[in-house]
Amino acid sequence: MTLTPLMIDLGGKKVVIVGGGRVAERRVQNLLESGALLTVISPEIEEKIHSLWEKGLLNWRQKYFEAEDLDNAFLIIVATNNSVVNQSVVQATPPNSLLSVASDANQGNVQFPAHFKQGKLSVSISTNGASPLLSAKIKKHLHTIYDENYGDYVDFLYESRQLIKHSALAKKEQKLLLKDLLREDFLNKDKQRKKLVCLKGDILK
Amino acid sequence: MTLTPLMIDLGGKKVVIVGGGRVAERRVQNLLESGALLTVISPEIEEKIHSLWEKGLLNWRQKYFEAEDLDNAFLIIVATNNSVVNQSVVQATPPNSLLSVASDANQGNVQFPAHFKQGKLSVSISTNGASPLLSAKIKKHLHTIYDENYGDYVDFLYESRQLIKHSALAKKEQKLLLKDLLREDFLNKDKQRKKLVCLKGDILK
Repeated sequence: MTLTPLMIDLGGKKVVIVGGGRVAERRVQNLLESGALLTVISPEIEEKIHSLWEKGLLNWRQKYFEAEDLDNAFLIIVATNNSVVNQSVVQATPPNSLLSVASDANQGNVQFPAHFKQGKLSVSISTNGASPLLSAKIKKHLHTIYDENYGDYVDFLYESRQLIKHSALAKKEQKLLLKDLLREDFLNKDKQRKKLVCLKGDILK
Repeated sequence: MTLTPLMIDLGGKKVVIVGGGRVAERRVQNLLESGALLTVISPEIEEKIHSLWEKGLLNWRQKYFEAEDLDNAFLIIVATNNSVVNQSVVQATPPNSLLSVASDANQGNVQFPAHFKQGKLSVSISTNGASPLLSAKIKKHLHTIYDENYGDYVDFLYESRQLIKHSALAKKEQKLLLKDLLREDFLNKDKQRKKLVCLKGDILK
């Protein structure tokens, strides 16, 4: 199975998580900042899921799984420890739905990579099942390289790019300016501040 | 917009690319190894797309876009340079479909991160629109760190993990063995070979 890495906007989309145990909890945590409308289907739920539900951060349907629970779901996550239930969710999943099966990744078409964010920068690591431990180790290592300062640098690039793209400059000039921003010295915050002042002056004049 | 990184199995899925120019070509190249059934909708196509079509690697519908072209599509990629056509594809896209709009990422719900593979290792970088140039630069840098040898190492981890997971060892012992494989010295090929011989001997005896 070849997996394709994609960045998906789950904002406002219904994500159904069948199961309320530790695997479900991990997925809920993964998706809390995604903007998805999370619905957990399970007679019982872990304390942490319960407290998120109390805060209004997810929906909880306190019940056993039925096929109707998948209506309009954009992404379905199968996370119970009961293989019969898991199988019935897989069978009820409409074709072309996004499906993640925690107990057997091969049954679904979605897997969650190891992943960190630093401001607008997002880095994902997957070993396609070879070693989740290695994915986690690489993630930890890269997170120390691409640290908070780096996140600020990416924010600076974003702000600069918006200024340049919305300017009256010719495409060619825009390209040169954008390329120039990748110089190492712009990792320095003072240089960033000065550059932004210059860009605003040049472009808005 | 917050984007969630997911690994998606496109194998056997219909992916419709509307447009036949350079942007379409880039996406086709991105997806050639995904196992997706690629269909390009366009009266004209770039030479490279044409040659892939001749090799039977994609379908080409030589025509203008119509809403029916999206039937059963798992992923829709809008890639013409005609904003009216692009808009009509966006409007014809059924709710809950995966949609990528090259000219305006905010209109779709899918973006393609910068990405490299090294054996089973897959690393993706996105700056959420802050700087595609930086994504490409980070990708290039990480690709030199996680080189071919590293790909072999990940293959070794995969083989070892399969042996361990299918053994009669207790879960706790399996965990210890899997963790031990992350020792730096296993980056050495000789050590890998010896370890595999040991694992096979220990587990199969």
